[in-house]
Amino acid sequence: MNKEELLAQIRKKGSFLCIGLDADLNKIPKFLLDFEDPIFEFNKRIIDATKDLCVAYKPNLAFYECLGEAGWVSLRKTVNYIPKEIFTIADAKRGDIGNTAKKYAETFFETYAFDSVTVAPYMGEDSVAPFLNFSGKWAIVLGLTSNQGAFDFQYLQTEERPLHLHVIEKVASWGTDRNLMFVVGATKAEELAGIRKVIPEHFLLVPGVGAQGGSLEDVCNYGLNDEIGLLVNSSRGIIYAGDQEDFDQKAREAALKMQQQMKQYV
Amino acid sequence: MNKEELLAQIRKKGSFLCIGLDADLNKIPKFLLDFEDPIFEFNKRIIDATKDLCVAYKPNLAFYECLGEAGWVSLRKTVNYIPKEIFTIADAKRGDIGNTAKKYAETFFETYAFDSVTVAPYMGEDSVAPFLNFSGKWAIVLGLTSNQGAFDFQYLQTEERPLHLHVIEKVASWGTDRNLMFVVGATKAEELAGIRKVIPEHFLLVPGVGAQGGSLEDVCNYGLNDEIGLLVNSSRGIIYAGDQEDFDQKAREAALKMQQQMKQYV
Repeated sequence: MNKEELLAQIRKKGSFLCIGLDADLNKIPKFLLDFEDPIFEFNKRIIDATKDLCVAYKPNLAFYECLGEAGWVSLRKTVNYIPKEIFTIADAKRGDIGNTAKKYAETFFETYAFDSVTVAPYMGEDSVAPFLNFSGKWAIVLGLTSNQGAFDFQYLQTEERPLHLHVIEKVASWGTDRNLMFVVGATKAEELAGIRKVIPEHFLLVPGVGAQGGSLEDVCNYGLNDEIGLLVNSSRGIIYAGDQEDFDQKAREAALKMQQQMKQYV
Repeated sequence: MNKEELLAQIRKKGSFLCIGLDADLNKIPKFLLDFEDPIFEFNKRIIDATKDLCVAYKPNLAFYECLGEAGWVSLRKTVNYIPKEIFTIADAKRGDIGNTAKKYAETFFETYAFDSVTVAPYMGEDSVAPFLNFSGKWAIVLGLTSNQGAFDFQYLQTEERPLHLHVIEKVASWGTDRNLMFVVGATKAEELAGIRKVIPEHFLLVPGVGAQGGSLEDVCNYGLNDEIGLLVNSSRGIIYAGDQEDFDQKAREAALKMQQQMKQYV
Protein backbone atom coordinates (compact mmCIF):
# COMPACT_ATOMS: atom_id res chain seq x y z
CA MET A 1 0.00 0.00 0.00
CA ASN A 2 1.39 3.41 -0.88
CA LYS A 3 1.12 6.64 1.06
CA GLU A 4 -1.77 8.06 -0.97
CA GLU A 5 -3.84 4.93 -0.44
CA LEU A 6 -3.20 5.02 3.29
CA LEU A 7 -4.07 8.69 3.45
CA ALA A 8 -7.26 8.13 1.44
CA GLN A 9 -8.36 5.54 4.01
CA ILE A 10 -7.64 7.93 6.85
CA ARG A 11 -9.70 10.72 5.25
CA LYS A 12 -12.55 8.39 4.28
CA LYS A 13 -12.89 6.91 7.75
CA GLY A 14 -12.01 9.99 9.79
CA SER A 15 -9.62 7.75 11.67
CA PHE A 16 -5.94 7.03 12.06
CA LEU A 17 -6.53 4.14 14.43
CA CYS A 18 -4.42 1.01 14.34
CA ILE A 19 -5.74 -1.97 16.28
CA GLY A 20 -3.18 -4.33 17.77
CA LEU A 21 -4.16 -7.97 17.38
CA ASP A 22 -2.36 -9.36 20.44
CA ALA A 23 -4.61 -12.40 20.67
CA ASP A 24 -3.73 -14.47 23.72
CA LEU A 25 -5.36 -17.83 24.50
CA ASN A 26 -5.33 -16.87 28.19
CA LYS A 27 -7.21 -13.63 27.61
CA ILE A 28 -9.74 -14.21 24.84
CA PRO A 29 -13.32 -15.04 25.88
CA LYS A 30 -13.55 -18.64 27.10
CA PHE A 31 -16.33 -19.66 24.72
CA LEU A 32 -13.95 -19.19 21.77
CA LEU A 33 -11.74 -22.02 23.01
CA ASP A 34 -14.32 -24.48 21.63
CA PHE A 35 -13.60 -23.33 18.07
CA GLU A 36 -11.07 -25.13 15.89
CA ASP A 37 -8.86 -22.03 15.67
CA PRO A 38 -9.74 -19.80 18.63
CA ILE A 39 -7.12 -17.15 17.78
CA PHE A 40 -8.38 -16.69 14.24
CA GLU A 41 -12.00 -16.77 15.41
CA PHE A 42 -11.21 -13.99 17.90
CA ASN A 43 -9.39 -11.89 15.31
CA LYS A 44 -12.10 -12.43 12.71
CA ARG A 45 -14.79 -11.12 15.02
CA ILE A 46 -12.66 -8.16 16.10
CA ILE A 47 -12.01 -7.33 12.44
CA ASP A 48 -15.68 -7.66 11.50
CA ALA A 49 -16.67 -5.35 14.34
CA THR A 50 -14.04 -2.65 13.82
CA LYS A 51 -12.97 -2.57 10.16
CA ASP A 52 -14.91 0.61 9.37
CA LEU A 53 -13.33 2.44 12.31
CA CYS A 54 -9.62 1.73 11.85
CA VAL A 55 -7.10 2.05 9.04
CA ALA A 56 -4.56 -0.54 10.19
CA TYR A 57 -4.27 -3.85 12.04
CA LYS A 58 -1.09 -4.86 13.80
CA PRO A 59 -0.67 -8.49 14.84
CA ASN A 60 2.06 -8.81 17.45
CA LEU A 61 4.16 -11.74 16.29
CA ALA A 62 5.13 -13.02 19.73
CA PHE A 63 1.52 -13.98 20.46
CA TYR A 64 1.44 -16.20 17.36
CA GLU A 65 4.97 -17.61 17.51
CA CYS A 66 4.52 -18.90 21.04
CA LEU A 67 1.80 -21.24 19.73
CA GLY A 68 4.20 -22.90 17.33
CA GLU A 69 3.23 -23.77 13.78
CA ALA A 70 -0.48 -23.46 14.60
CA GLY A 71 0.09 -19.84 15.57
CA TRP A 72 1.51 -19.05 12.14
CA VAL A 73 -1.53 -20.67 10.54
CA SER A 74 -3.77 -18.39 12.61
CA LEU A 75 -1.62 -15.44 11.58
CA ARG A 76 -1.85 -16.29 7.89
CA LYS A 77 -5.63 -16.67 8.07
CA THR A 78 -5.85 -13.36 9.92
CA VAL A 79 -3.77 -11.41 7.40
CA ASN A 80 -5.75 -12.91 4.54
CA TYR A 81 -9.00 -11.97 6.26
CA ILE A 82 -8.13 -8.30 6.70
CA PRO A 83 -9.75 -6.23 3.89
CA LYS A 84 -7.14 -5.23 1.29
CA GLU A 85 -7.72 -1.50 1.75
CA ILE A 86 -6.61 -1.71 5.39
CA PHE A 87 -2.89 -1.34 6.15
CA THR A 88 -1.29 -4.35 7.82
CA ILE A 89 1.68 -4.25 10.19
CA ALA A 90 3.67 -7.30 11.25
CA ASP A 91 4.87 -6.19 14.67
CA ALA A 92 7.94 -8.41 14.61
CA LYS A 93 10.79 -6.03 15.46
CA ARG A 94 13.23 -7.98 13.34
CA GLY A 95 16.80 -6.85 12.84
CA ASP A 96 19.67 -8.82 11.35
CA ILE A 97 22.33 -8.33 8.73
CA GLY A 98 22.18 -8.29 4.93
CA ASN A 99 21.06 -11.59 3.53
CA THR A 100 19.26 -12.51 6.76
CA ALA A 101 17.36 -9.22 6.78
CA LYS A 102 16.31 -9.93 3.20
CA LYS A 103 14.87 -13.28 4.32
CA TYR A 104 12.87 -11.52 7.03
CA ALA A 105 11.59 -9.02 4.46
CA GLU A 106 10.53 -11.91 2.22
CA THR A 107 8.84 -13.57 5.21
CA PHE A 108 6.58 -10.67 5.99
CA PHE A 109 6.13 -9.06 2.57
CA GLU A 110 5.82 -12.21 0.47
CA THR A 111 5.26 -15.39 2.50
CA TYR A 112 2.69 -13.51 4.62
CA ALA A 113 1.43 -10.57 2.58
CA PHE A 114 1.89 -7.75 5.11
CA ASP A 115 2.21 -4.13 4.01
CA SER A 116 4.83 -3.41 6.64
CA VAL A 117 7.02 -4.83 9.37
CA THR A 118 8.55 -3.26 12.48
CA VAL A 119 12.36 -3.29 12.50
CA ALA A 120 14.98 -2.78 15.24
CA PRO A 121 17.78 -0.33 14.39
CA TYR A 122 20.73 -1.47 16.53
CA MET A 123 22.58 -3.31 13.73
CA GLY A 124 22.52 -0.31 11.38
CA GLU A 125 21.99 0.26 7.67
CA ASP A 126 22.50 -3.23 6.29
CA SER A 127 19.85 -4.47 8.72
CA VAL A 128 17.24 -1.93 7.54
CA ALA A 129 17.97 -1.32 3.85
CA PRO A 130 16.86 -4.80 2.67
CA PHE A 131 13.31 -3.97 3.80
CA LEU A 132 13.20 -0.86 1.60
CA ASN A 133 13.36 -2.51 -1.81
CA PHE A 134 9.82 -3.85 -2.01
CA SER A 135 7.31 -1.75 -3.92
CA GLY A 136 4.43 -0.56 -1.75
CA LYS A 137 5.98 -2.10 1.38
CA TRP A 138 7.25 -0.32 4.49
CA ALA A 139 9.77 -0.75 7.27
CA ILE A 140 8.63 0.79 10.55
CA VAL A 141 11.79 1.35 12.56
CA LEU A 142 11.93 1.68 16.34
CA GLY A 143 12.68 5.29 17.22
CA LEU A 144 11.59 6.11 20.74
CA THR A 145 9.62 3.31 22.37
CA SER A 146 6.80 3.54 24.90
CA ASN A 147 8.23 1.29 27.61
CA GLN A 148 10.23 1.99 30.75
CA GLY A 149 13.32 0.37 29.20
CA ALA A 150 13.40 3.18 26.63
CA PHE A 151 15.31 5.16 29.25
CA ASP A 152 18.16 2.63 29.33
CA PHE A 153 19.70 3.50 25.96
CA GLN A 154 17.41 5.63 23.83
CA TYR A 155 18.11 8.80 25.82
CA LEU A 156 21.88 8.39 26.01
CA GLN A 157 23.57 11.57 24.88
CA THR A 158 25.38 10.96 21.59
CA GLU A 159 27.09 13.87 19.92
CA GLU A 160 24.92 16.29 21.91
CA ARG A 161 21.67 14.55 21.01
CA PRO A 162 19.81 11.67 22.61
CA LEU A 163 20.43 8.40 20.77
CA HIS A 164 16.87 8.09 19.47
CA LEU A 165 17.13 11.37 17.52
CA HIS A 166 20.40 10.22 16.03
CA VAL A 167 18.83 6.89 15.09
CA ILE A 168 15.77 8.50 13.53
CA GLU A 169 17.77 11.00 11.47
CA LYS A 170 20.23 8.39 10.25
CA VAL A 171 17.62 5.77 9.42
CA ALA A 172 15.53 8.38 7.59
CA SER A 173 18.53 9.01 5.31
CA TRP A 174 18.39 5.37 4.12
CA GLY A 175 14.88 5.60 2.68
CA THR A 176 12.00 7.99 2.15
CA ASP A 177 8.67 8.86 3.73
CA ARG A 178 7.19 6.38 1.25
CA ASN A 179 8.95 3.26 2.51
CA LEU A 180 9.87 4.16 6.10
CA MET A 181 7.86 4.96 9.21
CA PHE A 182 9.02 5.20 12.81
CA VAL A 183 7.71 3.88 16.11
CA VAL A 184 7.38 6.69 18.64
CA GLY A 185 5.63 5.85 21.91
CA ALA A 186 2.62 7.89 23.03
CA THR A 187 3.99 7.90 26.56
CA LYS A 188 6.69 10.28 25.24
CA ALA A 189 4.26 12.70 23.53
CA GLU A 190 6.23 15.79 24.48
CA GLU A 191 9.21 14.39 22.56
CA LEU A 192 7.16 14.27 19.37
CA ALA A 193 7.73 17.96 18.68
CA GLY A 194 11.51 17.44 18.54
CA ILE A 195 11.13 14.30 16.46
CA ARG A 196 8.83 16.11 14.01
CA LYS A 197 11.62 18.63 13.39
CA VAL A 198 13.86 15.76 12.24
CA ILE A 199 11.21 13.88 10.21
CA PRO A 200 8.36 16.27 9.34
CA GLU A 201 6.97 14.08 6.54
CA HIS A 202 7.09 10.52 7.87
CA PHE A 203 4.23 8.56 9.29
CA LEU A 204 4.72 7.62 12.94
CA LEU A 205 3.32 4.45 14.47
CA VAL A 206 2.36 5.46 17.99
CA PRO A 207 1.77 2.74 20.58
CA GLY A 208 1.08 3.40 24.24
CA VAL A 209 -2.27 5.19 24.12
CA GLY A 210 -4.72 3.61 26.54
CA ALA A 211 -3.42 0.77 28.68
CA GLN A 212 0.09 2.28 28.78
CA GLY A 213 -1.19 5.74 29.76
CA GLY A 214 -0.45 7.91 26.71
CA SER A 215 -2.90 10.68 25.76
CA LEU A 216 -4.35 10.86 22.25
CA GLU A 217 -4.75 14.64 22.57
CA ASP A 218 -1.08 15.12 23.43
CA VAL A 219 0.00 12.82 20.61
CA CYS A 220 -2.09 14.81 18.12
CA ASN A 221 -0.95 18.18 19.42
CA TYR A 222 2.72 17.30 19.02
CA GLY A 223 2.68 14.70 16.25
CA LEU A 224 0.16 15.60 13.52
CA ASN A 225 1.46 16.93 10.23
CA ASP A 226 -0.28 18.18 7.08
CA GLU A 227 -0.93 14.63 5.92
CA ILE A 228 -1.99 13.44 9.40
CA GLY A 229 1.25 11.42 9.64
CA LEU A 230 0.10 9.30 12.57
CA LEU A 231 -1.09 5.74 13.08
CA VAL A 232 -2.13 5.54 16.73
CA ASN A 233 -2.26 2.00 18.04
CA SER A 234 -4.41 0.54 20.75
CA SER A 235 -4.33 -3.17 21.52
CA ARG A 236 -5.60 -4.34 24.91
CA GLY A 237 -7.86 -1.30 25.40
CA ILE A 238 -9.90 -2.36 22.38
CA ILE A 239 -9.60 -6.12 21.88
CA TYR A 240 -10.06 -6.95 25.57
CA ALA A 241 -12.74 -4.31 26.29
CA GLY A 242 -15.12 -7.23 26.88
CA ASP A 243 -14.63 -10.88 27.82
CA GLN A 244 -18.09 -12.30 27.12
CA GLU A 245 -20.03 -13.31 24.00
CA ASP A 246 -20.41 -9.63 23.11
CA PHE A 247 -16.67 -8.91 23.28
CA ASP A 248 -16.67 -7.81 19.65
CA GLN A 249 -19.33 -5.19 20.32
CA LYS A 250 -17.38 -3.96 23.36
CA ALA A 251 -14.32 -3.73 21.13
CA ARG A 252 -16.34 -1.75 18.61
CA GLU A 253 -17.48 0.65 21.32
CA ALA A 254 -13.89 1.21 22.46
CA ALA A 255 -12.70 1.69 18.86
CA LEU A 256 -15.60 4.04 18.12
CA LYS A 257 -14.68 6.17 21.11
CA MET A 258 -11.16 6.59 19.73
CA GLN A 259 -12.38 7.20 16.19
CA GLN A 260 -14.74 9.90 17.45
CA GLN A 261 -11.84 11.68 19.09
CA MET A 262 -9.69 11.24 16.00
CA LYS A 263 -12.16 12.48 13.40
CA GLN A 264 -11.93 16.06 14.66
CA TYR A 265 -8.25 16.06 13.68
CA VAL A 266 -8.68 14.58 10.19
CA MET B 1 21.97 -26.17 29.82
CA ASN B 2 24.04 -24.58 32.57
CA LYS B 3 27.53 -23.13 32.36
CA GLU B 4 29.27 -26.20 33.79
CA GLU B 5 27.60 -28.49 31.26
CA LEU B 6 28.60 -26.22 28.40
CA LEU B 7 32.16 -26.02 29.67
CA ALA B 8 32.33 -29.81 30.08
CA GLN B 9 31.37 -30.20 26.40
CA ILE B 10 34.05 -27.72 25.36
CA ARG B 11 36.76 -29.55 27.32
CA LYS B 12 35.61 -32.99 26.17
CA LYS B 13 35.59 -32.05 22.49
CA GLY B 14 38.51 -29.63 22.48
CA SER B 15 36.21 -27.25 20.63
CA PHE B 16 34.21 -24.09 21.14
CA LEU B 17 32.74 -24.22 17.67
CA CYS B 18 29.16 -23.21 16.99
CA ILE B 19 27.76 -24.17 13.59
CA GLY B 20 25.17 -21.86 12.09
CA LEU B 21 22.34 -23.77 10.45
CA ASP B 22 21.37 -21.14 7.84
CA ALA B 23 19.74 -23.70 5.56
CA ASP B 24 18.58 -22.05 2.34
CA LEU B 25 16.62 -23.90 -0.35
CA ASN B 26 18.59 -21.97 -2.98
CA LYS B 27 21.94 -23.08 -1.61
CA ILE B 28 21.60 -26.63 -0.37
CA PRO B 29 22.67 -29.42 -2.73
CA LYS B 30 20.07 -29.91 -5.45
CA PHE B 31 19.58 -33.63 -4.82
CA LEU B 32 18.08 -32.84 -1.40
CA LEU B 33 15.14 -31.06 -3.01
CA ASP B 34 13.66 -34.50 -3.78
CA PHE B 35 13.22 -35.23 -0.09
CA GLU B 36 9.96 -34.48 1.70
CA ASP B 37 11.64 -31.92 3.99
CA PRO B 38 14.86 -30.79 2.26
CA ILE B 39 15.79 -28.31 4.99
CA PHE B 40 15.57 -30.88 7.75
CA GLU B 41 17.35 -33.47 5.61
CA PHE B 42 20.19 -31.01 5.04
CA ASN B 43 20.44 -30.11 8.74
CA LYS B 44 20.25 -33.76 9.80
CA ARG B 45 23.21 -34.70 7.62
CA ILE B 46 25.22 -31.68 8.75
CA ILE B 47 24.51 -32.58 12.38
CA ASP B 48 25.41 -36.25 11.86
CA ALA B 49 28.70 -35.23 10.23
CA THR B 50 29.78 -32.56 12.73
CA LYS B 51 28.26 -33.28 16.14
CA ASP B 52 31.53 -34.56 17.65
CA LEU B 53 33.37 -31.42 16.52
CA CYS B 54 31.12 -28.61 17.74
CA VAL B 55 29.48 -27.67 21.03
CA ALA B 56 26.59 -25.58 19.68
CA TYR B 57 24.22 -25.30 16.72
CA LYS B 58 22.61 -21.99 15.80
CA PRO B 59 19.66 -22.04 13.40
CA ASN B 60 19.09 -18.58 11.94
CA LEU B 61 15.36 -18.03 12.24
CA ALA B 62 14.97 -15.92 9.11
CA PHE B 63 15.83 -18.90 6.92
CA TYR B 64 12.99 -20.92 8.47
CA GLU B 65 10.39 -18.17 8.81
CA CYS B 66 10.57 -17.25 5.13
CA LEU B 67 9.27 -20.75 4.32
CA GLY B 68 6.10 -20.18 6.30
CA GLU B 69 4.63 -22.84 8.57
CA ALA B 70 6.68 -25.56 6.86
CA GLY B 71 9.85 -23.77 7.89
CA TRP B 72 8.87 -23.93 11.53
CA VAL B 73 8.21 -27.65 11.18
CA SER B 74 11.74 -28.08 9.78
CA LEU B 75 13.07 -25.99 12.67
CA ARG B 76 11.26 -28.08 15.27
CA LYS B 77 12.53 -31.33 13.77
CA THR B 78 16.05 -29.88 13.66
CA VAL B 79 16.07 -28.79 17.30
CA ASN B 80 14.70 -32.13 18.38
CA TYR B 81 17.36 -33.93 16.35
CA ILE B 82 20.30 -32.09 17.93
CA PRO B 83 21.83 -34.26 20.70
CA LYS B 84 20.82 -32.99 24.14
CA GLU B 85 24.39 -32.36 25.28
CA ILE B 86 24.91 -29.80 22.50
CA PHE B 87 23.97 -26.18 23.19
CA THR B 88 21.23 -24.78 20.94
CA ILE B 89 20.87 -21.13 19.95
CA ALA B 90 17.78 -19.67 18.30
CA ASP B 91 19.32 -16.80 16.34
CA ALA B 92 16.16 -14.75 16.34
CA LYS B 93 17.31 -11.33 17.64
CA ARG B 94 13.99 -10.67 19.27
CA GLY B 95 13.34 -7.56 21.33
CA ASP B 96 10.02 -6.25 22.57
CA ILE B 97 8.51 -5.05 25.81
CA GLY B 98 7.43 -6.89 28.95
CA ASN B 99 4.60 -9.28 28.26
CA THR B 100 5.57 -9.60 24.59
CA ALA B 101 9.17 -10.42 25.46
CA LYS B 102 7.86 -13.12 27.78
CA LYS B 103 5.93 -14.65 24.88
CA TYR B 104 9.10 -14.71 22.79
CA ALA B 105 10.95 -16.39 25.67
CA GLU B 106 8.20 -19.00 25.87
CA THR B 107 8.40 -19.50 22.10
CA PHE B 108 12.07 -20.38 22.05
CA PHE B 109 12.55 -21.92 25.50
CA GLU B 110 9.31 -23.90 25.72
CA THR B 111 7.44 -24.23 22.40
CA TYR B 112 10.78 -25.03 20.67
CA ALA B 113 13.15 -26.32 23.33
CA PHE B 114 16.19 -24.10 22.64
CA ASP B 115 18.82 -23.47 25.31
CA SER B 116 19.20 -19.84 24.28
CA VAL B 117 17.94 -17.06 22.04
CA THR B 118 19.64 -13.97 20.66
CA VAL B 119 18.08 -10.69 21.83
CA ALA B 120 18.31 -7.07 20.60
CA PRO B 121 19.00 -4.46 23.31
CA TYR B 122 17.51 -1.22 21.94
CA MET B 123 14.30 -1.35 24.00
CA GLY B 124 16.13 -1.76 27.32
CA GLU B 125 15.68 -3.75 30.49
CA ASP B 126 12.04 -4.80 30.21
CA SER B 127 12.85 -6.26 26.77
CA VAL B 128 15.71 -8.42 28.09
CA ALA B 129 14.76 -9.34 31.68
CA PRO B 130 11.86 -11.65 30.72
CA PHE B 131 14.38 -13.98 29.05
CA LEU B 132 16.40 -14.35 32.27
CA ASN B 133 13.83 -16.15 34.40
CA PHE B 134 14.05 -19.61 32.85
CA SER B 135 16.28 -22.13 34.62
CA GLY B 136 19.15 -23.31 32.44
CA LYS B 137 18.19 -20.93 29.62
CA TRP B 138 20.17 -18.02 28.24
CA ALA B 139 19.66 -14.67 26.52
CA ILE B 140 22.49 -13.80 24.13
CA VAL B 141 22.33 -10.03 23.70
CA LEU B 142 23.75 -8.11 20.75
CA GLY B 143 26.80 -6.20 21.91
CA LEU B 144 29.04 -5.34 19.00
CA THR B 145 27.96 -6.94 15.76
CA SER B 146 30.09 -8.16 12.86
CA ASN B 147 28.43 -6.24 10.02
CA GLN B 148 29.23 -2.90 8.37
CA GLY B 149 26.09 -1.37 9.88
CA ALA B 150 27.65 -1.79 13.34
CA PHE B 151 29.39 1.52 12.67
CA ASP B 152 26.10 3.39 12.34
CA PHE B 153 25.15 3.38 16.02
CA GLN B 154 27.23 0.96 18.06
CA TYR B 155 30.30 3.22 18.08
CA LEU B 156 28.47 6.44 18.91
CA GLN B 157 30.15 8.14 21.84
CA THR B 158 27.85 8.02 24.86
CA GLU B 159 29.12 9.44 28.12
CA GLU B 160 32.69 9.04 26.85
CA ARG B 161 32.27 5.44 25.79
CA PRO B 162 31.04 3.90 22.57
CA LEU B 163 27.42 2.81 22.80
CA HIS B 164 28.20 -0.91 22.63
CA LEU B 165 30.28 -0.80 25.83
CA HIS B 166 27.49 1.07 27.56
CA VAL B 167 24.98 -1.51 26.34
CA ILE B 168 27.12 -4.46 27.40
CA GLU B 169 27.79 -3.10 30.90
CA LYS B 170 24.17 -2.15 31.49
CA VAL B 171 22.72 -5.40 30.17
CA ALA B 172 25.23 -7.40 32.22
CA SER B 173 23.84 -5.71 35.35
CA TRP B 174 20.40 -7.24 34.63
CA GLY B 175 21.57 -10.85 34.84
CA THR B 176 24.62 -12.99 35.47
CA ASP B 177 27.22 -14.93 33.51
CA ARG B 178 24.92 -17.91 33.98
CA ASN B 179 21.93 -16.59 32.05
CA LEU B 180 23.46 -13.96 29.77
CA MET B 181 25.94 -14.06 26.91
CA PHE B 182 26.81 -11.37 24.38
CA VAL B 183 27.25 -11.31 20.62
CA VAL B 184 30.60 -9.77 19.68
CA GLY B 185 31.61 -9.96 16.04
CA ALA B 186 34.94 -11.56 15.10
CA THR B 187 35.49 -8.77 12.59
CA LYS B 188 36.01 -6.51 15.62
CA ALA B 189 38.54 -8.77 17.37
CA GLU B 190 40.69 -5.91 18.61
CA GLU B 191 37.66 -4.57 20.51
CA LEU B 192 37.40 -7.79 22.47
CA ALA B 193 40.11 -6.72 24.91
CA GLY B 194 38.08 -3.68 25.97
CA ILE B 195 34.89 -5.71 26.16
CA ARG B 196 36.61 -8.37 28.28
CA LYS B 197 37.42 -5.66 30.85
CA VAL B 198 33.69 -4.95 31.19
CA ILE B 199 32.52 -8.59 31.20
CA PRO B 200 35.46 -10.86 32.11
CA GLU B 201 33.26 -13.85 33.01
CA HIS B 202 30.60 -14.00 30.31
CA PHE B 203 30.52 -16.28 27.33
CA LEU B 204 30.67 -14.43 24.02
CA LEU B 205 29.00 -15.69 20.86
CA VAL B 206 31.37 -14.66 18.09
CA PRO B 207 30.08 -14.63 14.50
CA GLY B 208 32.09 -13.41 11.54
CA VAL B 209 34.95 -15.91 11.42
CA GLY B 210 35.37 -17.28 7.89
CA ALA B 211 33.05 -15.85 5.23
CA GLN B 212 32.94 -12.44 6.93
CA GLY B 213 36.73 -12.28 7.31
CA GLY B 214 37.35 -12.50 11.07
CA SER B 215 40.41 -14.39 12.34
CA LEU B 216 40.08 -17.19 14.88
CA GLU B 217 43.56 -16.48 16.22
CA ASP B 218 42.76 -12.82 16.89
CA VAL B 219 39.47 -13.73 18.52
CA CYS B 220 41.23 -16.18 20.85
CA ASN B 221 44.06 -13.80 21.67
CA TYR B 222 41.67 -11.06 22.74
CA GLY B 223 38.59 -12.97 23.85
CA LEU B 224 39.53 -16.14 25.74
CA ASN B 225 39.10 -16.21 29.49
CA ASP B 226 39.89 -18.84 32.16
CA GLU B 227 36.74 -20.77 31.28
CA ILE B 228 37.26 -20.39 27.52
CA GLY B 229 34.30 -17.98 27.41
CA LEU B 230 33.87 -18.15 23.65
CA LEU B 231 31.48 -19.78 21.23
CA VAL B 232 32.87 -19.08 17.78
CA ASN B 233 30.29 -19.43 15.03
CA SER B 234 30.78 -20.40 11.43
CA SER B 235 27.81 -20.87 9.12
CA ARG B 236 28.38 -20.69 5.37
CA GLY B 237 32.07 -21.67 5.63
CA ILE B 238 31.03 -25.06 7.02
CA ILE B 239 27.55 -25.92 5.82
CA TYR B 240 28.18 -24.85 2.22
CA ALA B 241 31.75 -26.18 2.00
CA GLY B 242 30.41 -28.64 -0.58
CA ASP B 243 27.38 -28.68 -2.85
CA GLN B 244 27.35 -32.30 -4.03
CA GLU B 245 26.28 -35.62 -2.50
CA ASP B 246 29.30 -35.49 -0.18
CA PHE B 247 28.46 -32.01 1.18
CA ASP B 248 28.26 -33.41 4.69
CA GLN B 249 31.81 -34.76 4.50
CA LYS B 250 33.04 -31.41 3.14
CA ALA B 251 31.26 -29.74 6.06
CA ARG B 252 32.98 -32.16 8.42
CA GLU B 253 36.37 -31.32 6.91
CA ALA B 254 35.74 -27.60 7.34
CA ALA B 255 34.54 -28.09 10.93
CA LEU B 256 37.50 -30.35 11.71
CA LYS B 257 39.90 -27.69 10.47
CA MET B 258 38.39 -25.20 12.91
CA GLN B 259 38.28 -27.71 15.76
CA GLN B 260 41.97 -28.52 15.20
CA GLN B 261 42.83 -24.84 15.55
CA MET B 262 40.59 -24.53 18.61
CA LYS B 263 41.84 -27.53 20.56
CA GLN B 264 45.21 -25.90 21.22
CA TYR B 265 43.40 -23.18 23.20
CA VAL B 266 41.21 -25.47 25.29
